Amino acid sequence: MTEFIAPGTHHIDLPSPFPMKRGGELHGARIAFETWGQLNEARDNAVLIVTGLSPNAHAAVNEGNPEPGWWEAMLGPGKPIDSNRWYIICVNSLGSCKGSTGPASINPDTGSEYRLAFPELSVEDGARAAHEVVRALGVKQLACVIGNSMGGMTALAYLLLHPHAARAHINVSGSARALPFSIAIRSLQREAIRLDPNWNHGDYDGVHYPENGMSMARKLGVVTYRSAMEWDGRFGRVRFDSECREDDPFGQEFEVERYLEGHARRFVHQFDPNCYLYLSRSMDWFDLAEYGDGDVMVALAKIRIEKALAIGVRTDILFPLQQQEQVADGLRASGAESEFLPLDSPQGHDAFLVDFDRFGPAIAGFLQKL
Amino acid sequence: MTEFIAPGTHHIDLPSPFPMKRGGELHGARIAFETWGQLNEARDNAVLIVTGLSPNAHAAVNEGNPEPGWWEAMLGPGKPIDSNRWYIICVNSLGSCKGSTGPASINPDTGSEYRLAFPELSVEDGARAAHEVVRALGVKQLACVIGNSMGGMTALAYLLLHPHAARAHINVSGSARALPFSIAIRSLQREAIRLDPNWNHGDYDGVHYPENGMSMARKLGVVTYRSAMEWDGRFGRVRFDSECREDDPFGQEFEVERYLEGHARRFVHQFDPNCYLYLSRSMDWFDLAEYGDGDVMVALAKIRIEKALAIGVRTDILFPLQQQEQVADGLRASGAESEFLPLDSPQGHDAFLVDFDRFGPAIAGFLQKL
Repeated sequence: MTEFIAPGTHHIDLPSPFPMKRGGELHGARIAFETWGQLNEARDNAVLIVTGLSPNAHAAVNEGNPEPGWWEAMLGPGKPIDSNRWYIICVNSLGSCKGSTGPASINPDTGSEYRLAFPELSVEDGARAAHEVVRALGVKQLACVIGNSMGGMTALAYLLLHPHAARAHINVSGSARALPFSIAIRSLQREAIRLDPNWNHGDYDGVHYPENGMSMARKLGVVTYRSAMEWDGRFGRVRFDSECREDDPFGQEFEVERYLEGHARRFVHQFDPNCYLYLSRSMDWFDLAEYGDGDVMVALAKIRIEKALAIGVRTDILFPLQQQEQVADGLRASGAESEFLPLDSPQGHDAFLVDFDRFGPAIAGFLQKL
Repeated sequence: MTEFIAPGTHHIDLPSPFPMKRGGELHGARIAFETWGQLNEARDNAVLIVTGLSPNAHAAVNEGNPEPGWWEAMLGPGKPIDSNRWYIICVNSLGSCKGSTGPASINPDTGSEYRLAFPELSVEDGARAAHEVVRALGVKQLACVIGNSMGGMTALAYLLLHPHAARAHINVSGSARALPFSIAIRSLQREAIRLDPNWNHGDYDGVHYPENGMSMARKLGVVTYRSAMEWDGRFGRVRFDSECREDDPFGQEFEVERYLEGHARRFVHQFDPNCYLYLSRSMDWFDLAEYGDGDVMVALAKIRIEKALAIGVRTDILFPLQQQEQVADGLRASGAESEFLPLDSPQGHDAFLVDFDRFGPAIAGFLQKL
């Protein structure tokens, strides 16, 4: 009931069993993906996109699905990630509910949904699963791995675990490890879901569904995805029409409150709460330093690629700019030609999803030089 | 049951009825306060402190109460706000539950607690109530009004509504109006309380108490009161001992999660949930621009004082530095000798409660020049 699979999404089967980093294994698991463009004869023009927590594999219009995707402005013919040149693969994360196997999927061993019986999920598991897609598609070596937000973590894990699997990397508002402010925010989001009596230790259905908890988690997400500066200009202190307001001194009154409510309503039933918990926790656990004797820079220096670009936004409070700078510095130490590009977008962490005037040329420029 | 009155706290009775800005009136209401030092013969050496949302009137040790107060390092003999020179008055906000009348107090008209029958609360109501204390104590003119956080709003309302009531003002991490990011955070805090089934539309008791909602609200507060930078250095990715952890993949594991939990536990039963809702909403509603034809600067220019200092902290995301700069600029336009002092404290909005190395000399230096 809680899988949300876009039409035209393809799948590969993961090796079965698929062992998980923190213990346990998956049987009969699969990964959803979509593609744009054509793999060339040398099989070396592929670009892999790994995503943030919530997107599906439908990043843009393609043959299988004419609906606009979540990164429509960024990929396709003639776009910054140009499908006339690149064979673009976008993968839905392991643990998600958008076609890949996750807590909302049926456990073939029991015939019912995994829910909390799903093994603990790591970013590294998602990276290994994405690599299975790339391998299944016959790609010899990726031209570039692009990772956004959580995908920035996945991409670094991918590159570290699969040496020489890619020649280049673009890290978009990502990081090499989770830091305490972000952990705290995600911890509160999870707490909101878990405190909802309808969450019921993961055993909800469409009728008894942790709507309030998901709504609170999403609103808190949106607050931290954007920036105070943007909101000052966008909402100020504007109130919405009083006839639409709740008759309650604590009810919604300001436009910013209604904006959050709208975001929450759109999200609540579009993402499975248990999947949300698993993916959210996987980010907290992610620390590339595990591969560098406790030192992120040592771990980054072990990555073998030729070129890298780390982009971030000054107003991002969730994956702050210093984290992208660290990625760029660390990859430079690995021998890569590595660039750090701080952008002035006012939209905070979410800027890569909306500020195409800045992100488009940055990504296009890097890819053109490959 | 839900009033928390420190020993040695004094009270004055507000005029009865006491009309409220947004409608309704209070009967038999009172305001709690404490004092330090002596009023001089000219009755012009008084300093008024108006507080943030949660503090009581016990800012420091005094004759009535030997326990340390919430601003212990800042006031007393020889301290930055020197009780050898100044007659210091700290007022517990109207609407609070720490001795002043608020939603947790008994409504004399009904004999039971106000709860949600308390009239809508404005920052301006709190300012007028604080002025009644000052008047009752025989102060001719305040030497200075010091307002922290919400108190920074209260102080500006006080100065605007009572021309020439004070000669100077220190605005500490305050603002002249609420902006959407802060409104959004407070809206989520209130939603957390209101969603708790035990809140029960304000009709809880000590047994059925909205503990989870208050805990979530407090944690979200603490996240936004401090700064990511401080937490990176303080917590990093440290885990607490695994034997203390909950047996749950989503249970607390990182020190930062335990820190939030500790803060929440200490707060939950120390502040009345309905009072929290009322005071929180009063901040959202506050907009000095109402007194300046929609323009904050016009309103600030109407304030009549001689000297002003607006202090803030670069890492404050709740009352960002630009808001203190605006206060300083606006008061300068009113003819005051006005100084803006941005500080580099890493502790965010809460810095004034902990970073005495920076705040102490700043406030002492300003007061010495009066």
